[in-house]
Amino acid sequence: MPRILLFLALFHSLFLSLPAAARPADPPRRLVLIDDDVIGLNGVPALLLQVPDVEVLGITTTSGSVWRDTATAHALRTLELTGKPNVPVVPGAVYPLLNSREQVIRWEGMYGRLVFKGPWTDYWPGDTIQEHPGVTDPADVPDLSYGNPSIKASDEIAALFLIRMARRYPGQVTLFATGPMTNIALALSLDPEFARNIKELVYMGGSLNPRQHLSNPSADQFAREFVNSPRREFNIRWDPEAARIMAHAPWRRITMIPVDPSTGTQWTRGFLDSLGSAPNPLTGALARSIAVGFPMWDELAAMVWLEPGIVTKRDTLYVDFETSMTAGYGDTLSWTEAYRPKLGEQAQDVVLEVDRERMEAAMRALYTRPIAGGGKR
Amino acid sequence: MPRILLFLALFHSLFLSLPAAARPADPPRRLVLIDDDVIGLNGVPALLLQVPDVEVLGITTTSGSVWRDTATAHALRTLELTGKPNVPVVPGAVYPLLNSREQVIRWEGMYGRLVFKGPWTDYWPGDTIQEHPGVTDPADVPDLSYGNPSIKASDEIAALFLIRMARRYPGQVTLFATGPMTNIALALSLDPEFARNIKELVYMGGSLNPRQHLSNPSADQFAREFVNSPRREFNIRWDPEAARIMAHAPWRRITMIPVDPSTGTQWTRGFLDSLGSAPNPLTGALARSIAVGFPMWDELAAMVWLEPGIVTKRDTLYVDFETSMTAGYGDTLSWTEAYRPKLGEQAQDVVLEVDRERMEAAMRALYTRPIAGGGKR
Repeated sequence: MPRILLFLALFHSLFLSLPAAARPADPPRRLVLIDDDVIGLNGVPALLLQVPDVEVLGITTTSGSVWRDTATAHALRTLELTGKPNVPVVPGAVYPLLNSREQVIRWEGMYGRLVFKGPWTDYWPGDTIQEHPGVTDPADVPDLSYGNPSIKASDEIAALFLIRMARRYPGQVTLFATGPMTNIALALSLDPEFARNIKELVYMGGSLNPRQHLSNPSADQFAREFVNSPRREFNIRWDPEAARIMAHAPWRRITMIPVDPSTGTQWTRGFLDSLGSAPNPLTGALARSIAVGFPMWDELAAMVWLEPGIVTKRDTLYVDFETSMTAGYGDTLSWTEAYRPKLGEQAQDVVLEVDRERMEAAMRALYTRPIAGGGKR
Repeated sequence: MPRILLFLALFHSLFLSLPAAARPADPPRRLVLIDDDVIGLNGVPALLLQVPDVEVLGITTTSGSVWRDTATAHALRTLELTGKPNVPVVPGAVYPLLNSREQVIRWEGMYGRLVFKGPWTDYWPGDTIQEHPGVTDPADVPDLSYGNPSIKASDEIAALFLIRMARRYPGQVTLFATGPMTNIALALSLDPEFARNIKELVYMGGSLNPRQHLSNPSADQFAREFVNSPRREFNIRWDPEAARIMAHAPWRRITMIPVDPSTGTQWTRGFLDSLGSAPNPLTGALARSIAVGFPMWDELAAMVWLEPGIVTKRDTLYVDFETSMTAGYGDTLSWTEAYRPKLGEQAQDVVLEVDRERMEAAMRALYTRPIAGGGKR
């Protein structure tokens, strides 16, 4: 053992003295914290965990598309299937900072029905091809279609875990957020240095001017979410105050992936079939957990981070979110430099369009990659 | 004379007994009231006054793009040039119901700069190819590039004139509104029967999901008005409370022409040249008053009414406007039936796209039509 350590130290100092391009086999690790309302194996973790040079420091969970405890179960099961049971899963916020079911009902009376309300979605108004979900209780965790986890979550609080990791690796961690911003807002409020300790924030949320790009019944259904409310997006609308706290923090760099690029993506049977019979338990679990027809929301965000070349259109905008309890509650606000109010909103790198084929090819490569240790089935 | 009357009566009863299609020469008059922040000869009146079967009962003016008195001068001059000096021009609201320059300045401090503020537009933020307009006084009426009017406006109040005409011709009048809704809101508040007395409301205002369709510097400039605020449009933003009163009134029929179809239209030198040397004073005045590069806003609305066949995409939506003094002040709200709040908002026939070539051809035919009496030069 000492001999090996000595060798490693020698190897390390040797290659550190070379120019970066000359180092043959020492790729820098990309540290990432995932904060997500994980809704299944199609989630971000399954992709990021499959990238050799990416080290997932942990997954913090939040309510959003599903309640936090359900998101936590999905995250744990994903870690088992990808052979990474030691990555910590840290449960976070159950409720938004201010928003509540009662407030949503009152708001709908004034401003019309929301399309998707996460676990508060009692039914879909109008004709729909979807099943009506029905309101669920935060503690109810359904059996997962691809098996329940046997590993357990951490008993740390998500915001504190985020702060601890950011302090341990200052300036080195990508914070990858694809759910509501509640945990992140709490971390920002608890630790004024949190944003500056993070290397970059990459988040999926908000909506600018989305347009329906695909013509099929599923695309029609999801277009309901933006055609009459182009500035409204669920992650932000679940907790607008948290999003505003996020948008005013002094991040070193922010990448926003709004709804806009997602409308050109979609889970299809063809894509799932194209994964073939890869020798890992991921593809089977995907087939059992994916709802064909859904946009590839969080996966798109993951691929933007992993393969920036898939982005075909981007813009720099100042972004904020509306927190007045009016028609625009939770709406995305954006400005170019000359128009912004200068109230602390930050410049964000906004992804507007992606190359779907290139994205799917990169996803396919990751999903079908052999899993270290084979993963647990 | 009596013989002629007898003949006419005979002629009339004869043809009334025939099926409608067989009547050779008795087109029904289409009565119209124009309410407009008239900004030049390119305005609506010049088109509507040129249609043989359309009878313009009067033009009511309002502040909006320019102050009311300037709009009034444009309307009067247009009547002279089209040989219709007896059509009444009735001045209306100078200020919005609640909105004010001070309030706009305060709002901009909170929510960022507006692009166009009508006569309150002090300067254009950021780089621009346009001249900075500078704030003007309501009483300042500039010399018109195509000559000042010699006829005078009515001393009636616009809202009262609108009510009087609607009562005189109940169910027969199209109310054609292409400016802020202040006069119309006042008429609705004064006379609870006003909306029901009107045959149909056709208005240009509001914004849904506009997209830049043309690639040139002018189109880039105008895209600033919607790219970061897709639900904001000037006519409504000038007087949001008036727009909300309009949107809740029990009209028999409402046609909305939002910004969306206008982004595919543009005044071009080519179109003006195509008018040639028509033997009427309109085309010369157009050449002197048109700002090439501007969208054909109000003209588009006029042509939608005159030539419904130019509409290539439309939708039925429930529409309202935000009046809370927040980021969304004056924003367009829209819903399909299943999502609307049912607070009195009405179903509107919303024009989304038009056939530009067909529209321009119809405009050309009207602008180059010989003018009765030759018009005053």
